[in-house]
Amino acid sequence: MSDELTIWTYDWVPQGPRGFVRDLRLRWACEEAGINYAIRTVPFDGRETNHLAEQPFGQVPFLNDHGVELFESGAGLLHLARKSDKLMPRDPAGEAETVQWTIAALNSVEMVTVPWWFLKLCGDENNGLTGWMGQRLDHMERVLSGQEWLSAGRFTVADLLMADVLRVSDVRAFGDRPATEAYVARVTGRPGFKKAHRDQIGHFEAADRTREKARST
Amino acid sequence: MSDELTIWTYDWVPQGPRGFVRDLRLRWACEEAGINYAIRTVPFDGRETNHLAEQPFGQVPFLNDHGVELFESGAGLLHLARKSDKLMPRDPAGEAETVQWTIAALNSVEMVTVPWWFLKLCGDENNGLTGWMGQRLDHMERVLSGQEWLSAGRFTVADLLMADVLRVSDVRAFGDRPATEAYVARVTGRPGFKKAHRDQIGHFEAADRTREKARST
Repeated sequence: MSDELTIWTYDWVPQGPRGFVRDLRLRWACEEAGINYAIRTVPFDGRETNHLAEQPFGQVPFLNDHGVELFESGAGLLHLARKSDKLMPRDPAGEAETVQWTIAALNSVEMVTVPWWFLKLCGDENNGLTGWMGQRLDHMERVLSGQEWLSAGRFTVADLLMADVLRVSDVRAFGDRPATEAYVARVTGRPGFKKAHRDQIGHFEAADRTREKARST
Repeated sequence: MSDELTIWTYDWVPQGPRGFVRDLRLRWACEEAGINYAIRTVPFDGRETNHLAEQPFGQVPFLNDHGVELFESGAGLLHLARKSDKLMPRDPAGEAETVQWTIAALNSVEMVTVPWWFLKLCGDENNGLTGWMGQRLDHMERVLSGQEWLSAGRFTVADLLMADVLRVSDVRAFGDRPATEAYVARVTGRPGFKKAHRDQIGHFEAADRTREKARST
């Protein structure tokens, strides 16, 4: 058995989601923690039904850590965080604070930003979630005005996830929140993010070339 | 220091949310695990700003476990699950499966059901999230048609949370999904849910009487 863990993503996606497919979260966490990983793929075409045994909502990523399998990027991040104190402190208070902010990113912030964004992409920019969206982002702006990192006074997996939620361009453009903007720049300025982002873009560009070649032969 | 942990909720809420305020999730988990707990309150009036130091989005619940403090019901559940194998198995595969389904409840199911419900309550029943809502609930119906519990072949904190997400009456009434309905009935039929639910209702009814008394004197 190799010493790598495996992150599964799509074999190809259109331009739009490139740089945002959530395997990036797991790549980034592995880069921060110094964990070796391999990338494997499932077909984008037929994703609605083809890999439901691995991911019951037809999505990516999912993770295989030497036989321990799990889907949901948030669950993958918490799993990786238990493997490395670079992602989460080991003391109970620091761990609790990190887990709470990780869940806050998923269930208090992204639970509003993603549906808001979905409705906007469907053409409904002034949708019914707009007021709620503003409230949640204002709360985050207040928090981030007072501290550099979300928990334990240093970078953790909670920052990785929260910055990934907040870096979506339509979310950044929603109002003027300088502390949030500085936070997103600070967290995504880390070498681990840059490498994970570059590698994901490269992965899908290579898939373009493979598709192109298949088409021309 | 007492051997209890403390769950914080509102001192009072209107009729509508009673039985659904999320302190119920933590009460229920404590009941399942046999963990002693005390209930303390913050005022419902002024909740938007009065307790932001304890909960940065102005919500409840939050938890104090002998000095370890955390907000977000999902984070509280994962914290409690680490204290008792009645909530989460101790083997790596069982733990990973439980965490993944806990996160799925928060970020793949509730991320759609709550915003959909919010828009419905605002009067927009056929809102832009309706198709997505149907897809997610269909995926859950397929999963629940094949298994009684979400992970490890037995009740875990993932079932507690998923059932709490799915038991909302408007969500239950959205389409006809018999396996989901049977699952919700099975999980919420547990004595731990019934006690937690009864205690929350009783807590707010007592608050009615206190308010009534204050008004009449």
